[in-house]
Amino acid sequence: MTGSTPAPFGAADYSARMERAVRSAAGAGLAGLLVAPGPDMVWLTGYTPTAVTERLTALVLVPGRDPVLVVPTLEAPDAEKAAGAAALTLRDWTDGKDPYSVTADLLHHSGRFGISDTTWAMHLLALQRALPGTSYVALTDALPMLRAVKDAAEVELLAAAGAAADATFEEIRKVPFAGRRESDLGHDLAGLLRRFGHSRVDFTIVGSGPNGANPHHEVGDRVIRRGDTVVLDFGGLKDGYGSDTTRTVHVGEPTEEERWVHDIVRAAQEAGCRAVRPGVPCQEVDRAARAVISDAGYGEYFIHRTGHGIGVTTHEPPYMIEGEEQPLVPGMCFSVEPGVYLPGRFGVRIEDIVTVTEDGGRRLNNTTREMVIVD
Amino acid sequence: MTGSTPAPFGAADYSARMERAVRSAAGAGLAGLLVAPGPDMVWLTGYTPTAVTERLTALVLVPGRDPVLVVPTLEAPDAEKAAGAAALTLRDWTDGKDPYSVTADLLHHSGRFGISDTTWAMHLLALQRALPGTSYVALTDALPMLRAVKDAAEVELLAAAGAAADATFEEIRKVPFAGRRESDLGHDLAGLLRRFGHSRVDFTIVGSGPNGANPHHEVGDRVIRRGDTVVLDFGGLKDGYGSDTTRTVHVGEPTEEERWVHDIVRAAQEAGCRAVRPGVPCQEVDRAARAVISDAGYGEYFIHRTGHGIGVTTHEPPYMIEGEEQPLVPGMCFSVEPGVYLPGRFGVRIEDIVTVTEDGGRRLNNTTREMVIVD
Repeated sequence: MTGSTPAPFGAADYSARMERAVRSAAGAGLAGLLVAPGPDMVWLTGYTPTAVTERLTALVLVPGRDPVLVVPTLEAPDAEKAAGAAALTLRDWTDGKDPYSVTADLLHHSGRFGISDTTWAMHLLALQRALPGTSYVALTDALPMLRAVKDAAEVELLAAAGAAADATFEEIRKVPFAGRRESDLGHDLAGLLRRFGHSRVDFTIVGSGPNGANPHHEVGDRVIRRGDTVVLDFGGLKDGYGSDTTRTVHVGEPTEEERWVHDIVRAAQEAGCRAVRPGVPCQEVDRAARAVISDAGYGEYFIHRTGHGIGVTTHEPPYMIEGEEQPLVPGMCFSVEPGVYLPGRFGVRIEDIVTVTEDGGRRLNNTTREMVIVD
Repeated sequence: MTGSTPAPFGAADYSARMERAVRSAAGAGLAGLLVAPGPDMVWLTGYTPTAVTERLTALVLVPGRDPVLVVPTLEAPDAEKAAGAAALTLRDWTDGKDPYSVTADLLHHSGRFGISDTTWAMHLLALQRALPGTSYVALTDALPMLRAVKDAAEVELLAAAGAAADATFEEIRKVPFAGRRESDLGHDLAGLLRRFGHSRVDFTIVGSGPNGANPHHEVGDRVIRRGDTVVLDFGGLKDGYGSDTTRTVHVGEPTEEERWVHDIVRAAQEAGCRAVRPGVPCQEVDRAARAVISDAGYGEYFIHRTGHGIGVTTHEPPYMIEGEEQPLVPGMCFSVEPGVYLPGRFGVRIEDIVTVTEDGGRRLNNTTREMVIVD
């Protein structure tokens, strides 16, 4: 969980984000926000506790009041060092004291509060008990787009993470594949991501041959063979912001069918990226990519949504999925990653991170999308 | 989170644990238990998802019904491989379906349910919405001792983890300390724990000189010097069960005061361990250790509880703390770790894991508790 280098932002940045969050909360009819450790807290305050334990740590944002971070006393020295610490008040509590009454005193005693999705149930239950007049809604339900629109500095951090992922691909395509295990390649990918500046590796998917047809597969002990199609999907955090890219390579010369499926996915990915521009509903990006695959007769083998947002996490709103009518806004950053999965045979997926610009989309991954032949 | 080798238990073991949990729940007046991924799920089913995401995974235990594990379809192949899978029914749900209605159908539509502490708030809120006639209580509040009493096989796994931690100490005391950073020693400790069979390292605290006086300190860039007292507190998981031990060493010859403080802590730790026997309330272990330190005039410098339980996690009930009246039961396993922290100067802590036997306590750490001189 930790081990992540913080993003290069200061108290003024975090203060502006907290103000934005409070305004959004008020606009959604919420009496305030409660944020436990996790990506929302990182984005709002720059703070990540060394460990998340049963001891309550919570950011309390209430319109018209100053932001307060409730922390266990043991944790206060760390919290004081957070990049956003100067923009908030610390309220520490010692073992034996009741952190929920401390928190309750900071909230209104009635009203509806947004609470971060990953807050532990034990904390929510204790707050519901301490403040029976309040009600709660998950932050992603209440304010799904809170972190979705990135500012210019965030986009450039995501671009730098994307460039590091691209550099990783350029190196991995040179290494031998045939005769090595998927797990060996996964190890290589993790090492390269770190070498190119990642402080955290979130996933290194190496799906060779039939394993590539399972989009959930990570790495296994399967030995890669000449003739395999291999899906490589990897990413993590660099300077606090995420990377996530997928390329599908082939060990030696592909068959005509393998090349054909790769071409279809490539065309679908291109169509998805071209659909990106301000005002277009998210679902249109999914539809644009899916139409190409369906028209080619492979619709039933594209078994997941087309994309997900990325920022201080590698998976977050907005989602490019049928039914998501949220219009795209300049600064949103997300993956476009269609795939075709032929059970028991092979899979192909191609993924770039794309950011919405004033008049279209800009890819943050720029390695070739042609099928790369590896050894 | 992952990377942990599973414990060597089979479906019959997990089945017995789930039955015990259901009986305990009924005894506490609960209509059932809901368990999200985490240590309770590991202990009850042997299952750890590759990643905990917004997609609901939950074990549902209701008296008189078979245990059911609700899982996202993408996760079902992994869940089927869990050691306890044969003892439960999988109920998978695909993207776009409502996992909460699936779960609600497995519960009674009224009554009070125990829910694991770390369940995400977004899941609890959705269940409260789906089943307005139900109420929830955190599992640790409802059944704090559910996993506290270990069976013989579990105690032996904890003993093996303890022996590996002991072997780590025997090696670390041979390495050079002076002139190296705390973080270097932390790296050494992690490597040794892995070399001696740990699949996961949870913490490697190296508190040198004044840093030793902050019990929350992990490792820093401080260069260790001749004359430093150094607190070494490290542990993790081996074969699914935890280790956690602390020894305080000295770089070169200690002063009379350093030796004196060490002697006091050692005597306190001895007193805490000697207090362990069936029927004794947990708080008596804390009192026994604390009395020695207070009597020596250092009471104000012993600023934390005396101990915590250990099992599939390195911190869990029972807690050896003032106010905890739970009587000790054979099979309980916990730390006894008094300390004295002199702000700005140095700290001393000595910690063993102890298991309650039929007539007393048995230490699972057995390296010397004398002050070890290192180079």
